[in-house]
Amino acid sequence: MTTFKGFAMKRLNETGWVEKEVPDCEPYDAIVRPTCVSPCTSDTHTVWEGAIGDRKDMVLGHEAVGIVEKVGSHVKNFKEGDKVIVPAITPDWDDEAAQRGFPSQTTEPLGGWKFSNFKDGVFGERFHVNLADANLALQPEELSDEAAVMLVDMWSTGMMGAENADIPLGGSVLVIGIGAVGLSAIAGAKLLGAGEIYAAGTRPISVKVAKKYGATNIINYKEGSIDQQVRDATDGAGVDSVIIAGGNLENTWKEAIASAKAGGTVSNVNYLSGADNVLIPRVEWGCGMSGIKITNGLCPGGRVRMERLASLALNKRADPELLVTHKFKGLEKIEEALYLMKDKPKDLIKPIVKIEE
Amino acid sequence: MTTFKGFAMKRLNETGWVEKEVPDCEPYDAIVRPTCVSPCTSDTHTVWEGAIGDRKDMVLGHEAVGIVEKVGSHVKNFKEGDKVIVPAITPDWDDEAAQRGFPSQTTEPLGGWKFSNFKDGVFGERFHVNLADANLALQPEELSDEAAVMLVDMWSTGMMGAENADIPLGGSVLVIGIGAVGLSAIAGAKLLGAGEIYAAGTRPISVKVAKKYGATNIINYKEGSIDQQVRDATDGAGVDSVIIAGGNLENTWKEAIASAKAGGTVSNVNYLSGADNVLIPRVEWGCGMSGIKITNGLCPGGRVRMERLASLALNKRADPELLVTHKFKGLEKIEEALYLMKDKPKDLIKPIVKIEE
Amino acid sequence: MTTFKGFAMKRLNETGWVEKEVPDCEPYDAIVRPTCVSPCTSDTHTVWEGAIGDRKDMVLGHEAVGIVEKVGSHVKNFKEGDKVIVPAITPDWDDEAAQRGFPSQTTEPLGGWKFSNFKDGVFGERFHVNLADANLALQPEELSDEAAVMLVDMWSTGMMGAENADIPLGGSVLVIGIGAVGLSAIAGAKLLGAGEIYAAGTRPISVKVAKKYGATNIINYKEGSIDQQVRDATDGAGVDSVIIAGGNLENTWKEAIASAKAGGTVSNVNYLSGADNVLIPRVEWGCGMSGIKITNGLCPGGRVRMERLASLALNKRADPELLVTHKFKGLEKIEEALYLMKDKPKDLIKPIVKIEE
Amino acid sequence: MTTFKGFAMKRLNETGWVEKEVPDCEPYDAIVRPTCVSPCTSDTHTVWEGAIGDRKDMVLGHEAVGIVEKVGSHVKNFKEGDKVIVPAITPDWDDEAAQRGFPSQTTEPLGGWKFSNFKDGVFGERFHVNLADANLALQPEELSDEAAVMLVDMWSTGMMGAENADIPLGGSVLVIGIGAVGLSAIAGAKLLGAGEIYAAGTRPISVKVAKKYGATNIINYKEGSIDQQVRDATDGAGVDSVIIAGGNLENTWKEAIASAKAGGTVSNVNYLSGADNVLIPRVEWGCGMSGIKITNGLCPGGRVRMERLASLALNKRADPELLVTHKFKGLEKIEEALYLMKDKPKDLIKPIVKIEE
Repeated sequence: MTTFKGFAMKRLNETGWVEKEVPDCEPYDAIVRPTCVSPCTSDTHTVWEGAIGDRKDMVLGHEAVGIVEKVGSHVKNFKEGDKVIVPAITPDWDDEAAQRGFPSQTTEPLGGWKFSNFKDGVFGERFHVNLADANLALQPEELSDEAAVMLVDMWSTGMMGAENADIPLGGSVLVIGIGAVGLSAIAGAKLLGAGEIYAAGTRPISVKVAKKYGATNIINYKEGSIDQQVRDATDGAGVDSVIIAGGNLENTWKEAIASAKAGGTVSNVNYLSGADNVLIPRVEWGCGMSGIKITNGLCPGGRVRMERLASLALNKRADPELLVTHKFKGLEKIEEALYLMKDKPKDLIKPIVKIEE
Repeated sequence: MTTFKGFAMKRLNETGWVEKEVPDCEPYDAIVRPTCVSPCTSDTHTVWEGAIGDRKDMVLGHEAVGIVEKVGSHVKNFKEGDKVIVPAITPDWDDEAAQRGFPSQTTEPLGGWKFSNFKDGVFGERFHVNLADANLALQPEELSDEAAVMLVDMWSTGMMGAENADIPLGGSVLVIGIGAVGLSAIAGAKLLGAGEIYAAGTRPISVKVAKKYGATNIINYKEGSIDQQVRDATDGAGVDSVIIAGGNLENTWKEAIASAKAGGTVSNVNYLSGADNVLIPRVEWGCGMSGIKITNGLCPGGRVRMERLASLALNKRADPELLVTHKFKGLEKIEEALYLMKDKPKDLIKPIVKIEE
Repeated sequence: MTTFKGFAMKRLNETGWVEKEVPDCEPYDAIVRPTCVSPCTSDTHTVWEGAIGDRKDMVLGHEAVGIVEKVGSHVKNFKEGDKVIVPAITPDWDDEAAQRGFPSQTTEPLGGWKFSNFKDGVFGERFHVNLADANLALQPEELSDEAAVMLVDMWSTGMMGAENADIPLGGSVLVIGIGAVGLSAIAGAKLLGAGEIYAAGTRPISVKVAKKYGATNIINYKEGSIDQQVRDATDGAGVDSVIIAGGNLENTWKEAIASAKAGGTVSNVNYLSGADNVLIPRVEWGCGMSGIKITNGLCPGGRVRMERLASLALNKRADPELLVTHKFKGLEKIEEALYLMKDKPKDLIKPIVKIEE
Repeated sequence: MTTFKGFAMKRLNETGWVEKEVPDCEPYDAIVRPTCVSPCTSDTHTVWEGAIGDRKDMVLGHEAVGIVEKVGSHVKNFKEGDKVIVPAITPDWDDEAAQRGFPSQTTEPLGGWKFSNFKDGVFGERFHVNLADANLALQPEELSDEAAVMLVDMWSTGMMGAENADIPLGGSVLVIGIGAVGLSAIAGAKLLGAGEIYAAGTRPISVKVAKKYGATNIINYKEGSIDQQVRDATDGAGVDSVIIAGGNLENTWKEAIASAKAGGTVSNVNYLSGADNVLIPRVEWGCGMSGIKITNGLCPGGRVRMERLASLALNKRADPELLVTHKFKGLEKIEEALYLMKDKPKDLIKPIVKIEE
């Protein structure tokens, strides 16, 4: 196979199928054939909101598991035929930013995000993985494709939100937004020792999973400001940690800061858009002296991250498949799945597309 | 009531009932009447192993919940009649060590441990609590006495073991020793994001609870060295974190260090006795350059700690009552409960004594 | 002495001398007679900008050293006649927020700030100190009053800015604003391992001290945006850490974020005023995924903090007296010193008033 | 040049010159020609103490700066002729341990140490560097060879000792051992905010540099136990942090633990030898509940580390050349320099050999 078919962003606001050459496999790289993929809200932002600017005929997608088709001459840990989990983020691990402790920021800010950003993504018959030894993980047999493909971005991003939130053991957490990432943040908050978990959201399908993942209180943002409801529920104390996984740039940040205790943490995992500035409310922030920290990050990638998330799933610490509401079969169904993601029907959390058993 | 009856260490190797004067209640202090107490292995070490040296007619016990009988003139948060959780460790929060971040080490090393160490403990009709505002916590109605009394030392100590173990999300943990503290360490490891949890122990009753608390693999130390079994189970990799909650000074530390990955952590919660030195095996420790950290601590005390542990119980993150295997009724049963703790029958994890409904 | 004279905020925009009753000395408290005080920019904000709302006849000032006049019945570490350093921030160390690790936020957000906020300050013949054992520190004989009074707020606040900035050993730092707090942040950055320190400011007297404290590059914000100058000086890389110790809410935060490397930290020590919101520039912040953390805090107080800062001064790690540009003698000169602080002449960093040798 | 001459360990207890083939330069690697090298105590341990077992004709040395002779096809950041600093430790940055945050432990424990351990070292006309983009750093023109070669192991190791010691700003530190690594630990402790620094050692040349690097008190271990002297000097308090950079396995660890405050840290940088076990004194360690942490590590390597240490030197935070007491010229002088290191005359800290101007 020298060319491959893929579902691409042809240009801003336009998608379609393309035929491209299979990329070269450099000494440390691999070529992978996806067995299961999942569209991400970011894919829709890329195509229809211009989130990363324009692209021509770029194959979309960054959530996949697959089978190794070819490895470079210096790859040691993987071989043709291996079933692998492919992290959405594939850093240059020898880079300056990785040495500083921020592998997802390699090459440039957010530079660890290569699939469907700087190169073709995973929605094709083949895709290229840089530094295969570091950026693939063996998929355990006991882990289904549906489960594994939820780890590569949703769990990794959402749980990072909890990791960045400095949750004290038995502390209280508020998660704003209960899409797939917010739900993963809830699972992460529970896994990292939260006592009370307040989840702000309204979609019934998401509320159901939020509770299964560990939410103890649901906040309906349509019934008043989130911070007021949090203060009411906590005798005025507020929460130790807030994770922002949704909302907008008009209200969400004000409500987040106003929900946190002095000394608490507001951790962002939302890809922010829609305004030039994020507004931190001065008074609620204690005039910049309340000790409320603001943290954020890009989805962690790499082999070890995937192995650890797989361990959580295998040991039943939480169930990744709870996020999967729609299943498709066959490469060509990627188009339908992506448009589903764009339209966000009420019963959707995440769709997946099985390409090969 | 000006005097009270209590079950005491009369001197080394001798216990008995004593009658003592109810202590003064200084401006920031409280006097509490216990409703439920639990003997601790430390109580037996104190009496029969001379762990803290000799004591005369010192009332034993440091695990209790109770009812506030009296508060000092400057106490703001509590009043007579309040149902309270009493942390085993009651620091001087304004002390130099507390300001440095180590409240359990106030006044002197381990100085936050006052009950049945520097003053009379909780196995009496009344006991004294220093800095009541800081060292009591309201007991939520939904939390039974049996559950609450497991928080004050067992959960607080065991879970600290997990907190000090630097467990990466999805990382692997080995807990050595599955008495009440080791089991709490397992619960803590699960609550702090562990994937695989190896538990080394053999008593069937403990193994059962270990699994309920989150252990994924049981290691029988009678079937070979712990580290060899851990290496075998992890393809030679070892674990990210080791928690020492039992064992001895001959083998345990060697096995612990030898079980950890380079860069991992060995976290001690065991009250060490039986030899002059803890032996860290030089070669297994990478000649002191493997990056394997050794951490430890004394049970965290204080109000906030108790509130957070109560939140974990109330939100069903884990069930403290799983530790309670034997229940007694009536103050006078403390004697029997303590001797049970000394004898450690096969079916025992922790006994409790209900003094008042 | 049952009454004392003090220089007060009579109401918004009005200052004057008042005569008040010496406060009661509760069991754990002390009454102190100041020997040297220093006005702070915050005092001027309090009077002339309404920063904390209105106050009636409240004695101003929170920077002092002095002599213990009286101690409460339960104070153990201090006695009448002791020469003491008085931290600007005097937490309730047994409070919930202190137990959570945030003593400066006790009672309520910023609640550790009591002098000239919730009670009379230090610009009088006597003042009251809560929890004396925890909130006073012996002033070493070798430490002059001029030096010691610079520790209680300027060094403690400024150096906290560096502590919150996650400076890697040999990393690069930008400090925006070179008033007394910004200069202390520079000293702190050097003491915490910074290699290059960029200082943004223009006043010649401050520039001179900035260099003595460790600044390696001076940035004149009048010659272009700070971030552009930082990028130019660092081959486009930016800096590891930014400390905001001045500037305004229009440009400073944009320039701060735009100066930081992905994964870096922006640490605020500026008391923010002048707008409803702090604007975080979305694109420069990597759409909330660049890993740039935002930290802040209120000046750390308490005995241990003062002892440690005194140790830095005594061991000549930096010289606090470099901040003192104007010296006055006599209680009544407080008025002149405060107005000097309000007018900020070119040659001023900090004035002090010696009240007693 | 297809072969090169080098000074080697021919077998245990025997050194000599060898002629070997210049290694292949794989796609990401480089071949370097040293301009200045320095023997390390480890080299003498390797040859005469069998510290790493036997080796045949292995070129010694891991401290060098040099000129790039050749780069692999995929190297982007360096080219022939570049003047480079070569870290003693050259990790596989894409490895599992590096992803876990422990790059010096790649491949296997201590596996980042490749020169004169797993492959030929730097005491030859040419040497091989793996992952050149990540494991070389440009040597700034203003930085002399003598200075730069002190960074690659001495500063990096010694300062890591301070980084691992959790020194609070203004805290007190004890450094045991004042060879080149201990002296670098003193410099590191000062750079990381220590107030008082106690240095235990006796050699006059080292004492002189210790004071220049920031030691405030010198402890002569011949005049009594170190911990007793530290307790005497600190009113019984002990120190916040202890760094072990020398001593033996009989007394040093006991004295180290006994010198630390409860909650403090003992950080090891000494390559331990001479006994099977490191003895942690049980009682002084608070029966394993004092909160005294024990940390350690292997010298950090890589490009960013070298750049940051160079920044410290260039910005005059400390002077690396203070460590250099003996200078030789010419490749063949390596032999003499190594034997000097073995014999340790009184006036020696570190020798260097200039090979090329």
